[in-house]
Amino acid sequence: MELDMLEMLGVVAGCCTTAAFMPQVIHTWRTKSVYDISLRMYSLFTFGVFLWLVYGISIGSFSIILANAVTLVLAFSILVMKIVYGRAPSEKGPGRRPK
Amino acid sequence: MELDMLEMLGVVAGCCTTAAFMPQVIHTWRTKSVYDISLRMYSLFTFGVFLWLVYGISIGSFSIILANAVTLVLAFSILVMKIVYGRAPSEKGPGRRPK
Repeated sequence: MELDMLEMLGVVAGCCTTAAFMPQVIHTWRTKSVYDISLRMYSLFTFGVFLWLVYGISIGSFSIILANAVTLVLAFSILVMKIVYGRAPSEKGPGRRPK
Repeated sequence: MELDMLEMLGVVAGCCTTAAFMPQVIHTWRTKSVYDISLRMYSLFTFGVFLWLVYGISIGSFSIILANAVTLVLAFSILVMKIVYGRAPSEKGPGRRPK
């Protein structure tokens, strides 16, 4: 595969895996319902994305910095909503709230 | 930052952002409840991870292939559960099921 095509593939892949979190942010913001979202997932994922951002800064890679800075903002906002809305008494009953 | 430290940072970051999906798979498998999970997110994210896998294969990068192959399996299983369990009549009522 030629270099340009390869670079385009990486850019499109990066855009998809970054933009993908936007619908979840909107969905959670609208419904304020977070029971089905895993707190552990977003804690670990947000931490991992932060590390990728540090990695990108360390090697001076603009694309890694940009992709992970945007993903960090989106993932972190889902994490915050999970914590904030996860505390509110939900109509599903407190008993059904996993860690 | 020395090269070894940098490589270690990349490995740890990759492990976090890959392993992060495991708690969501377990949580969704146990609860069979997917209302709060965005179908658009997991469709776009799974597609993006697939592209990263193709990218990794194209440049022959073992770490990109490994990380994205594992993430693809995890993200795809959440996507399948969202589709399968999203259809089942849920006690939250059909009216509250977003796209």
